[in-house]
Amino acid sequence: MSALVLLTPDAPAGRVADPDVPQLLVTDLGVVRGDGVFETLLAVDGRALQLEAHLDRLASSADALDLDLPAGERWQAAIETGLAEFARVHGEAEAMIRLVGTRGVDAAGPPTCWVYLQPVPASSREQRHRGLDVLLLDRGYSSDAAEAAPWLLLGSKTTSYAVNMAALRYAHRQGADDAIFVSSDGRVLEGPTSTLLIARTRDGVRELVTPLLRSGILAGTTQGALFATAEPAGWRLGYGPLTPEELHGNDGVWLASSVRLLAPIRSVDGCEIAVSPELTEELTELLLTATRH
Amino acid sequence: MSALVLLTPDAPAGRVADPDVPQLLVTDLGVVRGDGVFETLLAVDGRALQLEAHLDRLASSADALDLDLPAGERWQAAIETGLAEFARVHGEAEAMIRLVGTRGVDAAGPPTCWVYLQPVPASSREQRHRGLDVLLLDRGYSSDAAEAAPWLLLGSKTTSYAVNMAALRYAHRQGADDAIFVSSDGRVLEGPTSTLLIARTRDGVRELVTPLLRSGILAGTTQGALFATAEPAGWRLGYGPLTPEELHGNDGVWLASSVRLLAPIRSVDGCEIAVSPELTEELTELLLTATRH
Repeated sequence: MSALVLLTPDAPAGRVADPDVPQLLVTDLGVVRGDGVFETLLAVDGRALQLEAHLDRLASSADALDLDLPAGERWQAAIETGLAEFARVHGEAEAMIRLVGTRGVDAAGPPTCWVYLQPVPASSREQRHRGLDVLLLDRGYSSDAAEAAPWLLLGSKTTSYAVNMAALRYAHRQGADDAIFVSSDGRVLEGPTSTLLIARTRDGVRELVTPLLRSGILAGTTQGALFATAEPAGWRLGYGPLTPEELHGNDGVWLASSVRLLAPIRSVDGCEIAVSPELTEELTELLLTATRH
Repeated sequence: MSALVLLTPDAPAGRVADPDVPQLLVTDLGVVRGDGVFETLLAVDGRALQLEAHLDRLASSADALDLDLPAGERWQAAIETGLAEFARVHGEAEAMIRLVGTRGVDAAGPPTCWVYLQPVPASSREQRHRGLDVLLLDRGYSSDAAEAAPWLLLGSKTTSYAVNMAALRYAHRQGADDAIFVSSDGRVLEGPTSTLLIARTRDGVRELVTPLLRSGILAGTTQGALFATAEPAGWRLGYGPLTPEELHGNDGVWLASSVRLLAPIRSVDGCEIAVSPELTEELTELLLTATRH
C-alpha cells in the first residue's frame, strides 16, 4: 500500500496517481541516464520531518545538475496531498516519503517530478536497535576532489546511485549490514545511504563528531538536525577529517539517515566497537525533539 | 517516430509497445537508483552493427551489478522485432538502438528490459565530419582503482550516467563539444560517451593507439571492431597508458562511439591538434567493413 502524487504544471498541489500503473516513459532521461535528484524523508504523525532541510538539499542537488525543478512550495503542497492520500489508503501515521525530480524526456523540456509514499520498511526499524556490522570500502575519490571537479557531483543526491547500491551488495555478500566509504587519501566519508556520527568524551566533555562536509560528502539532514539540538543540550560539536582508526575507542558510532534514524555500528571490518543503547536512546530522543519543531 | 519492444517473460521475441505511453513504474530501481545497464547500437540497412560485442558487454555489465538479465538470444530476437517495427513506422534503414535492463521494482524480482529504436540524431551525423573541441576533465579516480574496488563499477555501462552528463554539460558551457576524462594520476581515460583513439606514425609504421583497458574504462565496441580490421590492413595496434601530452603531435585523434562512429578532435583545452579528413575517411571505411560482417 503506497501513494503517489505527480507534480504537473496543471495541478498546483500535485495530482494523485496510481503507483501501480506505469507513469514514466522509457525515454525519460532519469531512467536512461540516471539524470535526476531525490530525497527521502520520514513522516511521523502525518508530518514530514526536517522538511525544509530536505527541500533545501533537493534544490541544491538540482542546481548542481542544472535541473530546473518546481519551487519548494510546490513540493510541499504535493507532500501534503500525498500524506492525506497515504492516510486515506493506508491509515498509518508513519511513512517513508521519496521526492524525485528527473530531467524528463527532453533535456530542454520540463522535468518529471513526483512524491511517493510507502510504509517504513521493517528492516529500517529493526536496524535502529540491532546494531550494524560495517565494512570500510574505498570510494575511489580523494577528499579534495569535490571542489576542483564540480562535474563529479560529489555532495549532490542524484538518482545515479548504482555505485552506492553495488557497495551495499558487496558488503552484504561479505556478511556485513552496511558500508562506510573511505577516500583514496584515507579519510572516512559516509555510508552509501547515510551520514557517519561519532560520540566520544574528550577532557570530560561529550563530543559529537561527523566527517568534514567539504570532503565531498552529502550534507546529512539527520546529522544536521541532531547537531542543532545537541549543542544547547551540552554536547560539543566537531567536524573531521577522520581517519579509519578514529572509528575505534569511542563511546558510540552510528549511521544516521532520515528513515532509519540512528543505527548503531557494532563492528568495523570485523572488529567490534563499543555500542551504547543508552546513548542511542538519548541521541534519538534529541533528534526527535529536533525534528518535532 | 520511434519503436519500442518490451522483453517480457510471456513474449519470447519481445512485445511491441507504444513508446509514447508510460511503461515504467515510479518505483523501478532503474529510475530511483540508476540501478541498471544499457547499450547503444547503430543499425544500418536494417541490421544492428557489432551486435555480439554489444550483447557481450551488456552481459558483462549486468554481471558486475549482479543483475540477472535475459540471455543474449532473447535480446537479439527483441532487436529483430524492433527493427521490423521501426522499418514499418519509420521507413528508414538507419536507426539508433538502445538496450536497457534495470533491476525492476523489487531487488529480488524480475528485471525491467526493453529495446528502443529511434532515428540517428542529426548532431551525431554532423560530428562525424565537423570535428570536436574537447576539454580534459578530471574523473577523480586513480587509473588503478578499478581492480581493487569492484563496487565502483568502473568499466561497466550502468544507467547511473549523471556524472557523464554533468561533464558534457560543463564542457558545453565552456564552449566545447565534448570531454575526455583524465585519471587522478594523470592518465587519459575516455570520453563520457566514447572511446579515445589516436593515429600516429612511429619509425615509419602507422599505429592506432587507445588507452589501457585496465585503467577502469569501458571496453569500446567501436574501437574493438576497428582494431580487428585495422591490423590485417597494416596498422600496428597499441594500448596506453597515455598522458595528456600524448594527445598532441599525432596524425589524428578521434572519439569513437557506436552511433557517432569516429568523430575527429580538432582541439584539446583550446589548443588545436592535427585533423586529417583523409584518415577519418580511411578509418571509418575500415570500421564499416568490420561492422558489416
